[in-house]
Amino acid sequence: MHAINATHDPSLRSWVGSANRTGTDFPIQNLPFAVFRRSGSDEPFRGGVALGDQILDLGAAELAGVATGVAAEALAACAEPTLNSFMAMGNAAWSALRKFLSEALRADSRFAARLRPAFVPQKAAEYALAARIGDYTDFYASIHHATTVGKLFRPDNPLLPNYKWVPIGYHGRASSIRVSGQDFQRPYGQVLPKGADRPELAPTARLDYELEVGVFIGAGNQLGSRVPLAEAEEHVFGVCLLNDWSARDVQAWEYQPLGPFLAKNFATTLSPWIVTLEALAPFRAPWMRPAQDPQPLPYLDGAALRTAGALDIQLEAWLETARMRAQGLPPERLSHSSFRDCYWSVSQLVAHHTVNGCNLEAGDLLGSGTQSGPTPEEAGSLLELTDGGKRPISLGTGETRTFLADGDRVVFRGWCEKAGYVRIGLGEVAGRVLPAAPPS
Amino acid sequence: MHAINATHDPSLRSWVGSANRTGTDFPIQNLPFAVFRRSGSDEPFRGGVALGDQILDLGAAELAGVATGVAAEALAACAEPTLNSFMAMGNAAWSALRKFLSEALRADSRFAARLRPAFVPQKAAEYALAARIGDYTDFYASIHHATTVGKLFRPDNPLLPNYKWVPIGYHGRASSIRVSGQDFQRPYGQVLPKGADRPELAPTARLDYELEVGVFIGAGNQLGSRVPLAEAEEHVFGVCLLNDWSARDVQAWEYQPLGPFLAKNFATTLSPWIVTLEALAPFRAPWMRPAQDPQPLPYLDGAALRTAGALDIQLEAWLETARMRAQGLPPERLSHSSFRDCYWSVSQLVAHHTVNGCNLEAGDLLGSGTQSGPTPEEAGSLLELTDGGKRPISLGTGETRTFLADGDRVVFRGWCEKAGYVRIGLGEVAGRVLPAAPPS
Repeated sequence: MHAINATHDPSLRSWVGSANRTGTDFPIQNLPFAVFRRSGSDEPFRGGVALGDQILDLGAAELAGVATGVAAEALAACAEPTLNSFMAMGNAAWSALRKFLSEALRADSRFAARLRPAFVPQKAAEYALAARIGDYTDFYASIHHATTVGKLFRPDNPLLPNYKWVPIGYHGRASSIRVSGQDFQRPYGQVLPKGADRPELAPTARLDYELEVGVFIGAGNQLGSRVPLAEAEEHVFGVCLLNDWSARDVQAWEYQPLGPFLAKNFATTLSPWIVTLEALAPFRAPWMRPAQDPQPLPYLDGAALRTAGALDIQLEAWLETARMRAQGLPPERLSHSSFRDCYWSVSQLVAHHTVNGCNLEAGDLLGSGTQSGPTPEEAGSLLELTDGGKRPISLGTGETRTFLADGDRVVFRGWCEKAGYVRIGLGEVAGRVLPAAPPS
Repeated sequence: MHAINATHDPSLRSWVGSANRTGTDFPIQNLPFAVFRRSGSDEPFRGGVALGDQILDLGAAELAGVATGVAAEALAACAEPTLNSFMAMGNAAWSALRKFLSEALRADSRFAARLRPAFVPQKAAEYALAARIGDYTDFYASIHHATTVGKLFRPDNPLLPNYKWVPIGYHGRASSIRVSGQDFQRPYGQVLPKGADRPELAPTARLDYELEVGVFIGAGNQLGSRVPLAEAEEHVFGVCLLNDWSARDVQAWEYQPLGPFLAKNFATTLSPWIVTLEALAPFRAPWMRPAQDPQPLPYLDGAALRTAGALDIQLEAWLETARMRAQGLPPERLSHSSFRDCYWSVSQLVAHHTVNGCNLEAGDLLGSGTQSGPTPEEAGSLLELTDGGKRPISLGTGETRTFLADGDRVVFRGWCEKAGYVRIGLGEVAGRVLPAAPPS
């Protein structure tokens, strides 16, 4: 687990002015990674680090000229069109680059003049996925989500007997993952109309979002080897925001016995910025299991977990309807929860995933599952917020929602804050629902 | 659907003698693709085509010198270390290369002397996966398997109401797929001992194989687009054999509600050779749905499907125990089934997979699910053959099996035969179970 070091010092300020503004997601204590290029250009995509409202171009010649040693090697890897190579270099490289950037970008750096040309404004940039995602695994790690959803799908049997023992997960679709800004047509799927004895193919009528934390794997493990819990975080590069769009009517009809498939694999959207675990060091929290619950099996338990296994990341879901956009009204917040309430930690997800020898690779993505908190208002999906579509939400425009309407744009935000430290943000992930294509 | 053409002519013979031997998997009418190099060498992997007991090296200079046009472009793509680029070229390129190879390799070819140095004996070769597999989807398309297994997992509810409507599938793990010859340690996993109220971590005691057909996607589709049933086969490059190793005790405990995960993702093994759909043209069969069953929704139905949507591929599972090896005894055949009995066709799997706009990419892999036939002896897994482990199989060595023992080697074979055509084979896929690692 990462120690707090000079890069987290709350007194640090940057010579990039916007990084010092109160409330920025990207102060010098953050230094998250993305892959970007100038909007609309045919430049190659390459790695960048966010600072205030700017992006430090990690492929810029100015930067290569001032780095040395491991940091220079890491920078060279970051100039590639995906960060897979950089992720595979492991924690020593990530940490060396963070230290180098923290020093080069702080107010008293002697490189300020030299590095100023290496920045691109965020508003002038477009993003790509930060990694080629070989495999995407989605977990189900919020017990609050699992219980509420379980009640809707299986009223007599909401939380299955395995839930408190097994970090339940399944493999998702890698090919349809896109970076923030993904607009997609309402998908078709087989649905069973209420009372019908045969399904029909129709655009989903119960389109939902799922508020998740995405976890990028850095250094992988060999097929046949196991990552012990105590070493699990060494394999984690960082976190982002993830929207696991879901067609609930399709899901209800298709999910037995092999799990969700077409209900989920039409689109998954990620925030562009990956915040490293090292940046999150000040925002750790004890991982706690209620005393009345079974305690984890030994391979999923450990001292560091109990001390600081959780991550206190605040999460919000916002909705912007077409009417809000037309009327110039702001989006409305639908919920607010914290990743701290997750029943399983990131380290437990990694240890469990590999306990059978399954190999994780650099750039693989884990989803946390919908992060719902203990109260109904903290629910991370419309399915939960509307009690399975039975209690519509009222919006300030006079509109109501059970599930998403065409034109709806969903935005997630995430950040960490704690007394004595500078707030750091995950940025946001946005995506919009377009009308279904005409029947073919 | 591919027409029968001159490449299927049963009278064709090759100037490579072993291709003309009765019973070979790889006559000149087959021409399947793999990625190979000389065993133990540090040569680059590249594409090859099987002919008798030889491999035509598609990267060989001799070959490049005689091909022209699209066939030459296809050959250049086949010289890469994976066939993804070749697969992405689509059917016109695959078919042009097949025609070129058929002509260059037949007995009366003028290229015989020139191409002779471009061969490597199969016994001197080692294989790699033929494609970088971006996503792997496993289906559940044999109703006989689904019914038998359903009875074991859900005695009161064997075949779920969606089965006859939805080609049930789920996403599998791409990173742990290996080519034939994969030996792996018996995996650990959480299992719930009979009568226990808490699970334990243990090596699986119910390790099984699953006899499947693997389907490689060639040309992909854009995210948000749909592949109509009538065009589905244009997106399919070819088929191979697939062993979806499964830990049944882990599966039973973990699979609800999101499907199999660690029970399956520790290893999946593929045969090296991919037989193209064009090579399989003579072995098509009508796709039939029993009259008493619901007929498919329109997006899963069509005239070509009804005429020739099925593939009559014979499938066998063989077991070689450590004792058989020690005593020099041959492997024993455990079952024999046909892909013809599959409830859903390959075209239906593709059309269903994309009906929501999910994008398939060149090199993606679909598994058919365990191919069990209508009689109990045709079951494609030990779970079925032993009635869930209750009725052990007796082997000629005096051994018995419910599930796989350490040292067991499982071999699948596949082939097509039909009066008036030359038999073609899929070759074989083999893998072996090693003892579990010591507890850590």
